[in-house]
Amino acid sequence: MRRFVVVGHKAVTTPKFSLNDLPGGAGRMDIVARCVNASLFLSHAPPVAIRFSGEKVRYLSPDERSPAALIKKALEKGVPPAGEQECTPGVYISKQSFADVIGSLDDIVYLHEDGEDIRGARLTGDETFVLSDHQNLTPEEEEILATKGARKVSLGKKLYHADHCIVMVNYELDRRSDS
Amino acid sequence: MRRFVVVGHKAVTTPKFSLNDLPGGAGRMDIVARCVNASLFLSHAPPVAIRFSGEKVRYLSPDERSPAALIKKALEKGVPPAGEQECTPGVYISKQSFADVIGSLDDIVYLHEDGEDIRGARLTGDETFVLSDHQNLTPEEEEILATKGARKVSLGKKLYHADHCIVMVNYELDRRSDS
Repeated sequence: MRRFVVVGHKAVTTPKFSLNDLPGGAGRMDIVARCVNASLFLSHAPPVAIRFSGEKVRYLSPDERSPAALIKKALEKGVPPAGEQECTPGVYISKQSFADVIGSLDDIVYLHEDGEDIRGARLTGDETFVLSDHQNLTPEEEEILATKGARKVSLGKKLYHADHCIVMVNYELDRRSDS
Repeated sequence: MRRFVVVGHKAVTTPKFSLNDLPGGAGRMDIVARCVNASLFLSHAPPVAIRFSGEKVRYLSPDERSPAALIKKALEKGVPPAGEQECTPGVYISKQSFADVIGSLDDIVYLHEDGEDIRGARLTGDETFVLSDHQNLTPEEEEILATKGARKVSLGKKLYHADHCIVMVNYELDRRSDS
């Protein structure tokens, strides 16, 4: 299964944000929303992790507002004391830090411009790809990835929006499974 | 220069649409809005063509609402009797059909699953790429492209959202200019 972890550094974790101002008042929730559509496993700023299951999710259309509305609903449900809570079909909330999320996953690939070129990289399609929003990962976050043995893989020398990176990774994996 | 022509079959051409309901009331204007961000030359349903100049455009952020708001402003200005009118910096409106737009351009590439694989295709980066929204091009639109000698190029066997196709084409061209 393909998994993507997106770190939304400024994304609010209160449901009191307006669907009409995702980039501003909601802390670049527009990026997070587009990443939901481009991928389907997502976690944002500690201590709240929201997971979308591609198989089970419902009420998701390809615009920005519908994933943002599902995130808002999940935050309204609130974080359970332990474990994951299903908020709407296929959308789960839990109290997990970035370290918790990464610790629970294997085959971590950190998308970074200094990594190995993706077109030559060994990929099974079962990796978890980690990418950041409009800010770089912090040194602490990078240390968590290094401890877990994450490989650095690069999409090229240019910098791209997070949701576009997910499109490119999915496309590369699609091409390999087609051939 | 890279150019993308996007056909928005259902996209409204009146400014009376709500920025809060781009997929519904505005006729999948959300697709058009994301395509503006993923590319930067856009035309939608005849008889109105709206062109975004990547060099000159202002007030554009990567969310869906800001390009939709610029389209709305352009439609509020209205179509001039002849020629193009600049509505906001780098955004132009004119009365042109799909045939007019295609007729004025050269090196047309029609993104189609039956085409030549993009990774082997001859591309200079100066082509105009034509793609459709959530509906296929009509036989009449395909005839206009054939008359103009458009080449069919394929991104693969899967079908993708229009804005994601633009990301993939830009990425392929970036990789070639990097190497």
